[in-house]
Amino acid sequence: MELLKERIRKDGIVREGNVLKVDSFLNHQMDIKLFNEIGKEFKRLFCDTEINKILTVEASGIGIACVTAQYFDVPVVFAKKSKTKNIAGDVYTSKVKSFTHGRIYDVMVSKDFLKPDDKILIIDDFLANGCALLGLADLINQAGAVLQGAGIVIEKGFQVGGREIRKKGIRVESLAIIDEMSTENGIVFRN
Amino acid sequence: MELLKERIRKDGIVREGNVLKVDSFLNHQMDIKLFNEIGKEFKRLFCDTEINKILTVEASGIGIACVTAQYFDVPVVFAKKSKTKNIAGDVYTSKVKSFTHGRIYDVMVSKDFLKPDDKILIIDDFLANGCALLGLADLINQAGAVLQGAGIVIEKGFQVGGREIRKKGIRVESLAIIDEMSTENGIVFRN
Repeated sequence: MELLKERIRKDGIVREGNVLKVDSFLNHQMDIKLFNEIGKEFKRLFCDTEINKILTVEASGIGIACVTAQYFDVPVVFAKKSKTKNIAGDVYTSKVKSFTHGRIYDVMVSKDFLKPDDKILIIDDFLANGCALLGLADLINQAGAVLQGAGIVIEKGFQVGGREIRKKGIRVESLAIIDEMSTENGIVFRN
Repeated sequence: MELLKERIRKDGIVREGNVLKVDSFLNHQMDIKLFNEIGKEFKRLFCDTEINKILTVEASGIGIACVTAQYFDVPVVFAKKSKTKNIAGDVYTSKVKSFTHGRIYDVMVSKDFLKPDDKILIIDDFLANGCALLGLADLINQAGAVLQGAGIVIEKGFQVGGREIRKKGIRVESLAIIDEMSTENGIVFRN
């Protein structure tokens, strides 16, 4: 998606340790006009696919998922990362390793909101090592629902996640795939 | 907002301890069509007000804020609850007491995304004791920005937050205000 790549080139900041800061438009401050274009593009890519629900994970996936959901005309469910009083009872849960936070956390979804007849599109802002995506796929699997694919805004193609997840037969559509990234040479996108 | 009150009556579940579960449409599974109606209503209520940015807090405010932002044509910033590698550097921070989680946490926003010329609308799903809203107002104040008002989906009118915040001169528009709520008698809305 050219508009997105241009924006990453213009406003993305590469930091040591494979960190790409896109917090001025994607995951802290959010450019909702860009999110609309992202949503349209996900709809174009998955227009051949039956989808009745979008699944994402808090927090930075939620905005993109909600704006995208308008183009699919479906509800969004977001997996939670910590148990609150309001999510007591029956939940599906899966362990995820976070490199950003340097810890292991649980993702969970109430059993009320993932059902065997659900056809799910996962939406998330980043795909790097793939742990978050595999956690969400595991929740869908536990529910007996169908994972129709994953729409990712930025894939770090130099990390293993995308390759490993596609190898499992999961359809992944990433709007921008970064093949190389360094503070010296900037960002190289996959064609 | 009648559509919202009807939905709360239909799908909201009152639990002991002043808990109102609306997670089938508002803050776990999210009905995006309803969010669009909520966004339109916030725009109607604040149509007289200059707003160039919406501020919310992770996680359940983000979806409502992003859909609402389309009607204001402004970006959204969400305050984070924990420090990550990606939000290193200069942040505004404020302490918030969470009754849902039973702990005190920090909310923070990068100084890059709150500026003295910003005219801010806060959007959140719930107003109860008001602590989250006061934390966000404190961040705006630290930045020297202007808080134009707060748009709340559900206000627990029997708790002190709404009264105390309005007493400070902050404009609060709540789409549904609950005056009484019990497992026996259900929900009584303010007219």
